[in-house]
Amino acid sequence: MIIAHTIEEVRTQIRQARNEGKQIGFVPTMGYLHEGHLSLVKISKRQSDFQVMSIFVNRIQFNDRKDFESYPREYERDFALAEKAGVNLIFLPEEEEMYHNQRTFVEVESLADHLCGATRPGHFRGVCTVVAKLFNIVLPDVSVFGRKDIQQALIIEKMVKDLNFPIRIIIAPTIREEGGLAMSSRNKHLSSDERKRALSINRGLHAAKSRIESGIRRKEEIIAAVRSELEKSTPDKIDYIELVSYETLQPIEHIEGRTILAIAAFFGSTRLIDNMLIEPEGDSFTCVL
Amino acid sequence: MIIAHTIEEVRTQIRQARNEGKQIGFVPTMGYLHEGHLSLVKISKRQSDFQVMSIFVNRIQFNDRKDFESYPREYERDFALAEKAGVNLIFLPEEEEMYHNQRTFVEVESLADHLCGATRPGHFRGVCTVVAKLFNIVLPDVSVFGRKDIQQALIIEKMVKDLNFPIRIIIAPTIREEGGLAMSSRNKHLSSDERKRALSINRGLHAAKSRIESGIRRKEEIIAAVRSELEKSTPDKIDYIELVSYETLQPIEHIEGRTILAIAAFFGSTRLIDNMLIEPEGDSFTCVL
Repeated sequence: MIIAHTIEEVRTQIRQARNEGKQIGFVPTMGYLHEGHLSLVKISKRQSDFQVMSIFVNRIQFNDRKDFESYPREYERDFALAEKAGVNLIFLPEEEEMYHNQRTFVEVESLADHLCGATRPGHFRGVCTVVAKLFNIVLPDVSVFGRKDIQQALIIEKMVKDLNFPIRIIIAPTIREEGGLAMSSRNKHLSSDERKRALSINRGLHAAKSRIESGIRRKEEIIAAVRSELEKSTPDKIDYIELVSYETLQPIEHIEGRTILAIAAFFGSTRLIDNMLIEPEGDSFTCVL
Repeated sequence: MIIAHTIEEVRTQIRQARNEGKQIGFVPTMGYLHEGHLSLVKISKRQSDFQVMSIFVNRIQFNDRKDFESYPREYERDFALAEKAGVNLIFLPEEEEMYHNQRTFVEVESLADHLCGATRPGHFRGVCTVVAKLFNIVLPDVSVFGRKDIQQALIIEKMVKDLNFPIRIIIAPTIREEGGLAMSSRNKHLSSDERKRALSINRGLHAAKSRIESGIRRKEEIIAAVRSELEKSTPDKIDYIELVSYETLQPIEHIEGRTILAIAAFFGSTRLIDNMLIEPEGDSFTCVL
């Protein structure tokens, strides 16, 4: 596994892989890898021949400086996990390699209006900008994003379509710990009590699932069911519980087509997000966590 | 010369040229070609093997609907000129091919604060967005922009650097008609009286040139000299006469380093722009129109 710190090194390595006729797969990460990230590499390997992973804690997507500074970084551990997963090239740039008087920003309007876009101003602009940069550096054929960050994945998918990046975006299933907590690098910050309480997110999604699968369609009832489960565990703050259209990410009142139920809540000072896909199937709906 | 109307066709043609080991040169235009455009192709040919030109009147960069609608379009004439200049592939998309519920926009902050950025709100956002799209469609090695639109060229150069497009940007000299009027598709709209009066832009630049080359550095004196020349021809409106730093495009009071003198003025309802480069050379400055 090659570890590249500069854009120039990445370009050289990618050019060589291309010359060997290889298709390039790309998984952008902020490091502190877990099973979720590794599952993205696994999917990417099925679709391409040369696996690139970036590890870059991207300051411009953090709206909270403390969150940026405390974001876990453990590169040696990441290297071992990535290599084992079959990554061929790690791109681990210093901040100065990525940003030098950056003035150019990429924004996807409307899809960022709600959910995390509403509570983390500037977040998706930072995400889109760094991902556009990374795409232009790596020039992948395929890039895989996790469904845990569904709004991010859909915004990237829209950016790729709108800006005509010649890249296929794959959105991969959420990987969960035992008990159902969605894997996230931020889980590291949870105390054992907080981690236990955070399972209520999953219970909330399941409560909604059983309501929806038994025929309930009204937002209010579904959200109330989630909220009731969440509140049993006294989260430190519920950021949002929201039902939005899969296509537009705009809030809906009534489930009709493809829908997302999305949750963001704090346990201690750690903000966790999770979501469930609600897929029409004939006259009923299937819920996928 | 191939004329492609769809993105897919362009990608296929470019893939083939690449497979033949060719370097791709790209000149984006809004059509109604003149010597200025053709000079860009000429420069591009020195740097690459396969010449792509796009012709697309990009609605989202127009802040004035009438200007968009009246923008001259004469494609058969353009094809003949492009072919003669050595263009290998024309990309002439319909609007629906380029924009389909576009939500993603690219913006270069700060460089767009003044000059045309100030008087044409949203203009450079529209330019950057379409150029980013075209870059991702054509994937050129080199792309050439005219210095007549100096703010546009510098903003694109910054976008390419900031978003790490693997593309070399060349800024090519302004081509002028006899009498010194900078070539522009919009010149077509000028009556013969307006065209004659519009020569005062060039006289204004020359007035500034002789002042600067004789040692004058203060903005006020230089701009007054330009304004005096311009006003002799009773322009219908002077949009701006501005002295800005080449690096930052921010206004300066005193010429010290590389500087741009930029003019925008209306003759009749036609808005014309022009500029002059002021280059330090030892203790003095050279002015390049």
